[in-house]
Order: sequence, then C-alpha cells, then structure tokens
Amino acid sequence: MKLVTYLYDNRLTPGLLHNDAIIDLSSIAPDILTLIDNGPEALARAREYAATAPATLPLANARLLSPIPTPRRNVICLGKNYAEHARESYEARGEQVPTESPVATTEYPVIFTKATTSVNGPYDDIPVDDAISAQMDYEAELAFIIGRPARRVARAEAMSHVFGYTILNDVTARDLQTAHKQFHVGKSLDGCCPIGPWIVTADAIADPHALRITCHVNGELRQDSAGETMTFDIPTIIEILSRTMTLLPGDIIATGTPSGVGFARKPPVFLRPGDVVECAIEGIGTIRNKIRD
Amino acid sequence: MKLVTYLYDNRLTPGLLHNDAIIDLSSIAPDILTLIDNGPEALARAREYAATAPATLPLANARLLSPIPTPRRNVICLGKNYAEHARESYEARGEQVPTESPVATTEYPVIFTKATTSVNGPYDDIPVDDAISAQMDYEAELAFIIGRPARRVARAEAMSHVFGYTILNDVTARDLQTAHKQFHVGKSLDGCCPIGPWIVTADAIADPHALRITCHVNGELRQDSAGETMTFDIPTIIEILSRTMTLLPGDIIATGTPSGVGFARKPPVFLRPGDVVECAIEGIGTIRNKIRD
Repeated sequence: MKLVTYLYDNRLTPGLLHNDAIIDLSSIAPDILTLIDNGPEALARAREYAATAPATLPLANARLLSPIPTPRRNVICLGKNYAEHARESYEARGEQVPTESPVATTEYPVIFTKATTSVNGPYDDIPVDDAISAQMDYEAELAFIIGRPARRVARAEAMSHVFGYTILNDVTARDLQTAHKQFHVGKSLDGCCPIGPWIVTADAIADPHALRITCHVNGELRQDSAGETMTFDIPTIIEILSRTMTLLPGDIIATGTPSGVGFARKPPVFLRPGDVVECAIEGIGTIRNKIRD
Repeated sequence: MKLVTYLYDNRLTPGLLHNDAIIDLSSIAPDILTLIDNGPEALARAREYAATAPATLPLANARLLSPIPTPRRNVICLGKNYAEHARESYEARGEQVPTESPVATTEYPVIFTKATTSVNGPYDDIPVDDAISAQMDYEAELAFIIGRPARRVARAEAMSHVFGYTILNDVTARDLQTAHKQFHVGKSLDGCCPIGPWIVTADAIADPHALRITCHVNGELRQDSAGETMTFDIPTIIEILSRTMTLLPGDIIATGTPSGVGFARKPPVFLRPGDVVECAIEGIGTIRNKIRD
C-alpha cells in the first residue's frame, strides 16, 4: 500500500495511491499519523475501503506533501552508515580513516536528529541562502517509519515494529555541520528534509536492504548504492536505539546515505539555485526538489 | 506567574501556582502548550481568572509533571556553554583545551537534542541500568521556552520571543555520549530529562543570566554557577538558531551546564541507585530526582 498526504480543498488529507489515482482516506483516519497509531486493523480497514471507493483525484493533479508533514518529534538519522560514504567523509575533512572499520565499532552508530521544521514535500523547492551556508549538499536515504512502540526490542523481533518505508533527502549545510561540531544545526535548516512521495507499507517490501538508492543532480548520477550496503541494518538500528529510548509510532528514522555526496567530490561541488535533485529508491519511487534562492 | 502541569482526577491538567496552592486553568486552556500557543491574551486571561478563582488543591498534595510533559519536538540543548565546564570536559576526555577560547568561536555553539521520551517530572525517579550505561551524570541547566515563532530574529528583538524559564537536568550517559560520537543517544535515555517544577513566565524574571544555578547530589554541592556565565547568552542563542531553523512556541531550549559534573571530577563519580540529585535555580525553584535501578 502507498500512503500519501495531499492537499484537498486546502486541507492536509490522508490518501492511498491506487492505479495512479488517490483515494481519500479521511473517513478512516484524519491523518497518516493517526492511521499508524491505530495499528493493523486501521490499515486493513483502509485497504478494504480502497477496494471499492471511487478515486478522489488523479495522482498527476495532486499536490503531495511529506506523508507525515509534521512529525511528533525530530527525524532520527544515522551518520556514516555506508562504508564508502564514511571513508569519503573522513577524507574530505582531512581526517584519518579509522583502520579497523570506517565506523568506530559495530555497536555505536552515529545518531543525530533533524528539526521537524526542516521537513519538506517530495516535489517542493529547497530554499538556500548564501549568507547562511554556501555548502548545501544532498544525501539520498531510505527512511523507515516505526509502527508500534519499541522498547528494548531484540534484533529478531525488530522488523515487526516497522510500519513502512519512504525516501528522504538529508540536505545538509556542510559548513555549519562542521562549525557547530554536533550535526543538529547544519542538518536542520528550514525545508532541508524532503520526504516522500509516499510511505510504502512494510508488507509490500520483502527486503528493504536490497533496494537500490540513487541520487541525480541535474540528471547526472551522483549516488548509487549498488554494491554498497548499510553497516547497521534496520533490525540492528532498532535494537540499539530502543535499548536507550522508547521508539514511538510515526518516528521517522533515516538509515544514512551511500557515497557520492557533493562535498567529497574533487573538487567539492555544492547545490546552487536552479539545481534539481532527484532521490530515487527502487520499489518506492522518486522525490524531486529544486534548489531556490 | 508560575505555570504547572499536574495530575488531577488522573488527567494531566494545566495550573497556576498561587500562595502554595494550585489553581486549575482547564477553563482557560486544555494544556500549557495551548496556553503558550494562544499568546499574551490567554496569559492575561489566566492571570485574571486566578485572581478570583478558588484554589484547586495545595501544592504539597499535587503530583507535578514536567510543565510540558510531551513537547512537540526534541528538547534543544547547548553543549559547552560555560567556559569552566568546557575546560573540564576537554580535560576529562584527555582532549586539548582550545587556546583561543573553550568554545570554537563566538558564532558556532554546540547544539544537540534530547528525545521527547526522555522528558521526566520534577520529582520523579530517574531509571538507570548498568547494562546500558554505568556512567550516568547530572547537568543542572536553565532552560527557556519559546513563546512565539522565531525566524531570523536579531539579538535585540530576541527576548520578546521568550515565554518563560524552567529548570532542566540534562542527565547524560557519558559512555554512550562518547561512543556514539554525536551526543543524541547518550542524552536521550528514557526519563533522563527532568523538567520543572514549573515555568516562570518571562515578566517575572528581570535577568535570566544572573540567576545562580546549583546542583547537589545527596546534599553535597557539586555545581554552582556563581562567578561563571554563559558563553552564548539567550538572545545570541535565539539569533543563531533562528537564522537556520524556525523556532516554535513551546520549544524548550536548555542553555548548558556550569562546571562540576561528575565525569570531570578526579576521580570521576557517576550517579548510583539511591542517589538524590537536586537542581536549583534562584528565582525558579528546585527539582529533585532519585536514581532508581
């Protein structure tokens, strides 16, 4: 099932994508977060409803927003979760690449958050301002959504807490990320977290770790995860996080980006007004955002 | 005005503290977040109502929660915002103390977040578990609450965006804070962000930077900000943060801790089950939390 949030009569509306048309789910839940809260029965009701309900409008005419436009708390993100990206990041900063592994150990992923106000739609513009940062960069990522509370959940049980998957561009101001030492500010600029175009429910994706992730800038392939894999996979991320903090329904967790980001290119290349960034994940879709001054 | 959230008939209820008694504010707003959202008129109505309303129950009989029990997003925190604490932190980690200043520059504070699920009441127990972390530490801090949206707000205008002040103990798992590199996980354990006992509205505090902050553990004075001051003051924090991200009503921003934390003592001392941590701020009050296995 593909779940969207779209604008209908100037109202944020939950919907389900069916044959290139959107079916309004307002009668099932007021928004996607509530649909997630209400668990498997609500999802089953949505599926049943959609089987006979008329389409509300063609997808092509719909203005989509992030499937969860206002998350209940910050987006949780993994840093350096692909070995080649970890290596390129250390090198780009002139730091020594750890010899044992590009990440410190197999127990301690790099975790930071993006402010809720950075969340943006799948096709909306990303505002940039040279006076704030002249080093805006893309990071195409697979994100997963938590479906039910997770506290001290073991790896073997972890996947049953996943509601679904989406695409997230972890747009980053590299200069601020470095200057503030902790990543939060450089990762949290308004509009710098496009998400979407929909949440694909977990039942529709057999192995999320096998999905190919790509990023194109102005049509040029910049990132391609083919051959690269996450260091911490999704069950491990859930086990490690839920050991310390309770994960909640609707939590959005971005799994990190593969190699090929702009600041690690030689010479580094940053996003400029007019650039178009497309992040695509096999089996999910594509988000496409233009950089706007 | 002192605003509380307390349990009444098993319901989270907003209240106002008046002469050691709580006056129920449910008729003005369903919760403190909504009271903040509704701006100065709502606050004026609360004040007017409380002038004649009967007390609901004595403070001594009330079970207080964090004044904002479920923030709308993560708590924003400053790191190394007191020079002496910055110095002790570098030394405790065996890192070189920067010579120019204990913080990098005057433009780039260290900013991280604590998960909403870490928020805890002013007198509630803090759970610890040696299997998760054996290095739990306290950090007494002044926190301020944003009253109205702030986007690109200059220092000179910044204080008009502050709704009020409270006390926050930024309880930290030092081992996890270090191991994960980014601070988020080590700062976000369930129950590790006691807040309260109330929000003192901004009109009642002439200069928040002059308030003395202390922390006692089992009656022993460990932190005392007398003579120490914030590197980034509140107007500067608002200016810097709001340059990149829009600050929202109800946002909780913790201003950092003075020197005297446990992990910087020689030898280091960490919190153990049974310990009682009291964080007090002049003009606000005291929060008191017991460590529980």
